[in-house]
Amino acid sequence: MSTAGQVIRCKAAVAWESGKPLSIEEVEVAPPQKDEVRIKILFTSLCHTDVYFWDAKGQNPLFPRILGHEAGGIVESVGEGVTDLKPGDHVLPIFTGECKECPHCLSEESNMCDLLRINTDRGEMINDGKSRFSINGKPIYHFLGTSTFSEYTVVHVGQVAKINPEAPLDKVCVLSCGMSTGFGATVNVAKPKKGQSVAIFGLGAVGLAAAEGARVSGASRIIGVDLNPSRFELAKNFGVTEFVNPKDHNKPVQEVIAEMTGGGVDRSVECTGSIQAMISAFECVHDGWGVAVLVGVPNKDDAFKTHPVNLLNERTLKGTFFGNYKPRTDIPAVVERYMNKAFEYMLAGEGLRCMIRMDA
Amino acid sequence: MSTAGQVIRCKAAVAWESGKPLSIEEVEVAPPQKDEVRIKILFTSLCHTDVYFWDAKGQNPLFPRILGHEAGGIVESVGEGVTDLKPGDHVLPIFTGECKECPHCLSEESNMCDLLRINTDRGEMINDGKSRFSINGKPIYHFLGTSTFSEYTVVHVGQVAKINPEAPLDKVCVLSCGMSTGFGATVNVAKPKKGQSVAIFGLGAVGLAAAEGARVSGASRIIGVDLNPSRFELAKNFGVTEFVNPKDHNKPVQEVIAEMTGGGVDRSVECTGSIQAMISAFECVHDGWGVAVLVGVPNKDDAFKTHPVNLLNERTLKGTFFGNYKPRTDIPAVVERYMNKAFEYMLAGEGLRCMIRMDA
Ligand SMILES: NC(=O)c1ccc[n+]([C@@H]2O[C@H](COP(=O)([O-])OP(=O)(O)OC[C@H]3O[C@@H](n4cnc5c(N)ncnc54)[C@H](O)[C@@H]3O)[C@@H](O)[C@H]2O)c1
Ligand SMILES: NC(=O)c1ccc[n+]([C@@H]2O[C@H](COP(=O)([O-])OP(=O)(O)OC[C@H]3O[C@@H](n4cnc5c(N)ncnc54)[C@H](O)[C@@H]3O)[C@@H](O)[C@H]2O)c1
Ligand SMILES: [Zn+2]
Ligand SMILES: [Zn+2]
Ligand SMILES: [Zn+2]
Ligand SMILES: [Zn+2]
Repeated sequence: MSTAGQVIRCKAAVAWESGKPLSIEEVEVAPPQKDEVRIKILFTSLCHTDVYFWDAKGQNPLFPRILGHEAGGIVESVGEGVTDLKPGDHVLPIFTGECKECPHCLSEESNMCDLLRINTDRGEMINDGKSRFSINGKPIYHFLGTSTFSEYTVVHVGQVAKINPEAPLDKVCVLSCGMSTGFGATVNVAKPKKGQSVAIFGLGAVGLAAAEGARVSGASRIIGVDLNPSRFELAKNFGVTEFVNPKDHNKPVQEVIAEMTGGGVDRSVECTGSIQAMISAFECVHDGWGVAVLVGVPNKDDAFKTHPVNLLNERTLKGTFFGNYKPRTDIPAVVERYMNKAFEYMLAGEGLRCMIRMDA
Repeated sequence: MSTAGQVIRCKAAVAWESGKPLSIEEVEVAPPQKDEVRIKILFTSLCHTDVYFWDAKGQNPLFPRILGHEAGGIVESVGEGVTDLKPGDHVLPIFTGECKECPHCLSEESNMCDLLRINTDRGEMINDGKSRFSINGKPIYHFLGTSTFSEYTVVHVGQVAKINPEAPLDKVCVLSCGMSTGFGATVNVAKPKKGQSVAIFGLGAVGLAAAEGARVSGASRIIGVDLNPSRFELAKNFGVTEFVNPKDHNKPVQEVIAEMTGGGVDRSVECTGSIQAMISAFECVHDGWGVAVLVGVPNKDDAFKTHPVNLLNERTLKGTFFGNYKPRTDIPAVVERYMNKAFEYMLAGEGLRCMIRMDA
């Protein structure tokens, strides 16, 4: 019997209050409206952004809420006007969207869609300003338009990437956030040339994917920088050839790297969220041609500060959001790419994400 | 009678002390040594950098010195090992050089030659660490390796661009510094696409050349920003379509520009040397694709400061030195380009530089 058009009752992990354990509840999920898709979530994983908003330090607390944004699933039903997705399609819901019509979506360079770019403050669907989740009639807020910690969720069609149905959803679901962000930061933004040196600041999921991006680009040296030395062993599987712990040196890490490389690395990618690491990542690139890319999400009051001569000496500083990928246009090909590579690097990084199987 | 191999006695403007009027003296100019060229200077102009080092505020004072670095002349004689220049060649001496062998010279992206990049502290030739200028045996220091406020000067061959002998030296001499810097900052670094909007901060010689670069790139709007409203009239000849004086507004000029342009300009080029203008020039570019280029020379203690989210929102920040032109490789073609355009814009900018004819 089809559930299309019906309210679905299912399990979800609900965050009732900031910092309190999530509780598994039975929720009601309304049918998708215009330009919306209802998805059966099969796998979801936990990203630091979920924890950050669960903690709700420094943001507007919005509770009760269903968190979660790294996931893979299957379309259950589609709302009015949805033509490029149908029930049964394998999909990744993505925290940032692509309307395909705004100046950003029409630009080759930007993925910051005016309509659907990440909005951490919004708890409802844009179509009617209401939630599709409820418990006994009381609405539960959405998170990032994805809310994947639920067996079923409703997502705007612009935030759904349709992928090859043969891709293993338990693996490719990590491509919906951190992995694509790090990999794209290197291959789409830093763009190291074959034989160049690359420094990666922060060796979490994002940084390891950034290192993998450097490896597949043919980087000659990949210098991993982290305060936590336990990250190095795993990082070797992602191509990291040298490791620097800023704590081991009594001069700024950018100077250590400049000495190791005869003036600086050709490219750097910052994946920490630490403002100090952002500044070091910029100042450690070579003058004349070095490019530094910032990925980490800073604190509200952070200031990026450097002497302007560091810029005049022909360094480039950029930032990226979701690795500059357009979710609907680009992510299906990212999934293909990893299928062809037999997921070597993701298997290697298995311990990186805590994966939750939703239908268990 | 040839003067090759002889000491030449000629007139030069000597700076004896910081901030004191230059005095015209008879100086002795030694013959060029290995990899050096002696040039008869026909035209030279005055750039702010000369004034800055004459003032010697904030640098090591080095006097007596012969200033000057924007000039055009004719090769009088060449030293040992110089094969690509000969007496009679028309040349522009340039304050930054190109050895053609170091990693920067071999890189497509950099013009910051390890051997010959601008060095404001050096007062002697690199070959023997001595000066070629003297008065009654007392050495007079060089400036930027060019010292063009002299009828004859000695320059390292790596700092000499050989140009078309039909180019009018009284006009093209301005291409040896500010004009190329500004034009190159736009066309080589900011690279606006046809139809894009560009903001130019500072409408001196460098900024006007940057605006001209935007005009020839087909920019749809060129917004000139200067604290001095008298600059606007002239700027119209260089393609500037709108003018913003930060003093006319009681909010930051980046906000004014964002409102004028629906979120920000596509490109900006800062040509002021003011740190505040540098920050505004960065923050006024559109998120998603905006590129800001810094050109102005800041003060020693300036700090460039911005919220890192301005970068994460996919803006790019770069700086450039001499418009990213390689002096020997690229400047001959820049001269040709202007000859073909019949110097329309430089004639329009006649009042911009105080030109000195050396053989008068
Ligand atoms: N721009 C985007 O679209 C986007 C998307 C996803 C995640 N992020 C951000 O990317 C960053 C990394 O995410 P993650 O999931 O890999 O996080 P993570 O916490 O797993 O890894 C961060 C690593 O950085 C290291 N680190 C912290 N401070 C450091 C410093 N000063 N120097 C060197 N190393 C330091 C930590 O030890 C840790 O190993 C976070 O800030 C996250 O918010 C951004
Ligand atoms: N990077 C390089 O290779 C290179 C080469 C040559 C010159 N420069 C530098 O470029 C800059 C411009 O040179 P120029 O010869 O055109 O100088 P200039 O003094 O003729 O022009 C500078 C203009 O900037 C304006 N200005 C100053 N502060 C401002 C502010 N806060 N906002 C808006 N406008 C402001 C001034 O009113 C003036 O019109 C200087 O800093 C110079 O040192 C750099
Ligand atoms: Zn995430
Ligand atoms: Zn859009
Ligand atoms: Zn100059
Ligand atoms: Zn060189």
